[in-house]
Amino acid sequence: MGLWYDETFDGHTRLGLRVKQTLFSDESPYQKVEVIDTVAFGRVLVIDNIFMTSEYDEFLYHEMLVHPSLTTAPEIERVLVIGGGDGGTVREVLRYSDVKECVMIEIDQTVVDASKKFLPSIGTAWDDPRLDVRFIDGIDYVKHSDDPKYDVVLLDGTDPIGPGAVLFDQAFYQGCKRMLAPDGVMALQSASPLLMMDVFVETQHKLRSLFAEVHPYMGPVPLYGTGTWSWTWCSDTGEPLRAIPERQAEIVEAAKAYNDELHRAVFALPNYVKRALKL
Amino acid sequence: MGLWYDETFDGHTRLGLRVKQTLFSDESPYQKVEVIDTVAFGRVLVIDNIFMTSEYDEFLYHEMLVHPSLTTAPEIERVLVIGGGDGGTVREVLRYSDVKECVMIEIDQTVVDASKKFLPSIGTAWDDPRLDVRFIDGIDYVKHSDDPKYDVVLLDGTDPIGPGAVLFDQAFYQGCKRMLAPDGVMALQSASPLLMMDVFVETQHKLRSLFAEVHPYMGPVPLYGTGTWSWTWCSDTGEPLRAIPERQAEIVEAAKAYNDELHRAVFALPNYVKRALKL
Repeated sequence: MGLWYDETFDGHTRLGLRVKQTLFSDESPYQKVEVIDTVAFGRVLVIDNIFMTSEYDEFLYHEMLVHPSLTTAPEIERVLVIGGGDGGTVREVLRYSDVKECVMIEIDQTVVDASKKFLPSIGTAWDDPRLDVRFIDGIDYVKHSDDPKYDVVLLDGTDPIGPGAVLFDQAFYQGCKRMLAPDGVMALQSASPLLMMDVFVETQHKLRSLFAEVHPYMGPVPLYGTGTWSWTWCSDTGEPLRAIPERQAEIVEAAKAYNDELHRAVFALPNYVKRALKL
Repeated sequence: MGLWYDETFDGHTRLGLRVKQTLFSDESPYQKVEVIDTVAFGRVLVIDNIFMTSEYDEFLYHEMLVHPSLTTAPEIERVLVIGGGDGGTVREVLRYSDVKECVMIEIDQTVVDASKKFLPSIGTAWDDPRLDVRFIDGIDYVKHSDDPKYDVVLLDGTDPIGPGAVLFDQAFYQGCKRMLAPDGVMALQSASPLLMMDVFVETQHKLRSLFAEVHPYMGPVPLYGTGTWSWTWCSDTGEPLRAIPERQAEIVEAAKAYNDELHRAVFALPNYVKRALKL
């Protein structure tokens, strides 16, 4: 039957997947990177013993990170993705023909190389000529780059521990905003309001100090602790509850999960989240 | 640190909870019943090695089973609950002052006795004079009872394996409908559209053959496999997307999770579910 690979949260709860085989394992200069083949979730990218994404449920995460902002930002010509080494986020971004350039900043080339080789069903857009992948430090980039501003900035970081923790810093968010056009939209994964309510709330406060409009939204990701995740839509202008433009309707309806109904529904927050955020 | 208690799904995926101590363990005539005290989820009711409910997340399940139907049924004077031995469902039902009588049919008194003793924070309405708990066979009851019809029927069964499997039978659903007033509403837990898509789809088909209106809805329950669960709202008349009556608004706003926004949002289905149901 194969061995169990367990991800343990805080030492108290664990999700275990039965492993058929380990396809890749390497210590990069930044972190331990593995790809395992599991019975239930297919191939899974694991970084520092934390499940990152799986063939089985990656669409639930990537569609939720990308579609709410790509369908509501006033312009989407230039898109910046920070992190997202598995390629799922840029794949969803590049479905939009209005996107002219997608810059992806990923510090760890090992993640991209392993994903290209072992997770080809996730990263299907690596060869898109609009994609510009740079293996550099995202923090340094957003603080110092002279590149033109972006219409959309998407943060696809790992958990707020280890080398990815700086991607949850106020200073990093400030840099991201520096790279964003005045009426641009930023979206990010923002932890689990169930498993990690403290991180979730702290992140919301940081974002509110920077953006006039900060709207968390929620959805299922079976691979992530407790199965419920959040993302957050941020902007200084506009708000996320507007209709999907007709020219983009086709993209959304072809999605595996996201659609016009979810486009509004995911922003409905349960009372325990509203109370924690004093909404 | 204590031992791990793991629930394993299909031999391929497991959720493990660190246990502080086992508070109760008994073999009833029907099943193995345990209450364990865990670090992350508080006290957990376990039946035949499957996690049933926990102090930590029980509200997510019970509010979702009860509020969509209690707020939309034309009458809610008489409510029937089948299963639900932990007491969480009847607790939510009895929040409504319009409910005059709530009959709860639970085959296994051991579950209720253990819950009363070890999960008092879940079953807070055992002493409500409107509650009539009967330790009898639910299938037999719905097939043969001469009791007056109910305005709302709620099915709070376990998983479709073991002694609870009959609670997913077409014959059982037919009996439930027999006990329902012509414009009554039935709601039930209907498995995970992620972990158990086949059971979910089969259940929907059974319900559609019996009711004119069958509306599945989804929400998070961390304790249940993959963290995403479904329930289904059924009726021959009406539909669930109507506003919460003003006199009930207070109940819903005081809920831990459910509210007026979720009341509509939970019925938005992702594309993978709509396609599986050919909606």
